[in-house]
Amino acid sequence: MSSSRAIEALKEALRRLPGVGPKTAQRMAFHLMERDRDGAREIAVALENAIETVKSCSRCNTFCEAELCDLCGSTKRDPSALCVVETPADLEAIEQSGAFSGMYFVLMGQLSPIDGVGPDKLGFDRLNKLISEEGIGEVIIATNLTAEGEATAEYLRQLTDGHDVRTTRLARGVPVGGELEYMDQRTVSQAFHDRREMG
Amino acid sequence: MSSSRAIEALKEALRRLPGVGPKTAQRMAFHLMERDRDGAREIAVALENAIETVKSCSRCNTFCEAELCDLCGSTKRDPSALCVVETPADLEAIEQSGAFSGMYFVLMGQLSPIDGVGPDKLGFDRLNKLISEEGIGEVIIATNLTAEGEATAEYLRQLTDGHDVRTTRLARGVPVGGELEYMDQRTVSQAFHDRREMG
Repeated sequence: MSSSRAIEALKEALRRLPGVGPKTAQRMAFHLMERDRDGAREIAVALENAIETVKSCSRCNTFCEAELCDLCGSTKRDPSALCVVETPADLEAIEQSGAFSGMYFVLMGQLSPIDGVGPDKLGFDRLNKLISEEGIGEVIIATNLTAEGEATAEYLRQLTDGHDVRTTRLARGVPVGGELEYMDQRTVSQAFHDRREMG
Repeated sequence: MSSSRAIEALKEALRRLPGVGPKTAQRMAFHLMERDRDGAREIAVALENAIETVKSCSRCNTFCEAELCDLCGSTKRDPSALCVVETPADLEAIEQSGAFSGMYFVLMGQLSPIDGVGPDKLGFDRLNKLISEEGIGEVIIATNLTAEGEATAEYLRQLTDGHDVRTTRLARGVPVGGELEYMDQRTVSQAFHDRREMG
């Protein structure tokens, strides 16, 4: 234990950050107190400010500070395509790829009966309503390729069955730059199965 | 970029934590905002509180909240042995080992002329005074075994030359549980050179 209760409390608090164990928390706490108290203050202020101002977009669920996020409020996006993702981080990844210019719906999670996350928690009823009312032509299911993401995708596919929309799923295959030798069997098998005509 | 300026500011702020790059900062910010706002508040409060209350011990330099830290204020420690370490984290590591029951002096850094850290910044004059005035019989130099730590150790050895004290350095060798096969040459060489009589 350190000679300061405030440092012990800070170490304990920093462990609430994802991926931060006791050793890392101590290193962070000591670094901030020894060498970067301005940084410590900046983090505290940014946290307080984010807690205060960050809300969910009333349409797509992603983080925003107004009623609607910038994407949902934009007139430059294609309103006929809806991409369903698990998290705001996934949304960012797709935006950064530049491959999509439609609208999003963020589940803020994935189906996980073990953790008590059922369809009700993921706002599927709101998604359903949105697909009905907004003239959407294609729903692109972009949940992760994990077991839970696939189960969520399957549930979403069934949900879209009740609508007159095209339902698509992100391609499964070998990542760009990937080498077959180092891919797991299921990826290779999927890439083979989903092979496409060339040229 | 995300739809929230507050989240962008939070990501930027979290990058001031040691070892946290843009991807990790985003994961932390999203995690806190999505799933653990109580945790975010706990961290903010702990930071503010630590900034407010954490000071340096006027005798040994380590973190404390009073004039003297618990160790310097204790009557149960051996006042004739002084262990010089680089940081509070090093002090904690030695305390946790249970191998030492004397007093400490924390340099809060290491000699690093390239970074402009000379003997003046490490409080060597205060250390000098402390060795003179407190009847210390042994100075144990426990700086790191890095190049800078070794240079700092050498400087400290010269400083102690002016006093009637025994000066010792932590043993260099193969770590407990270490395998020779995986040790670097210099460690093996040092362990060989410093070999000791058995039994």
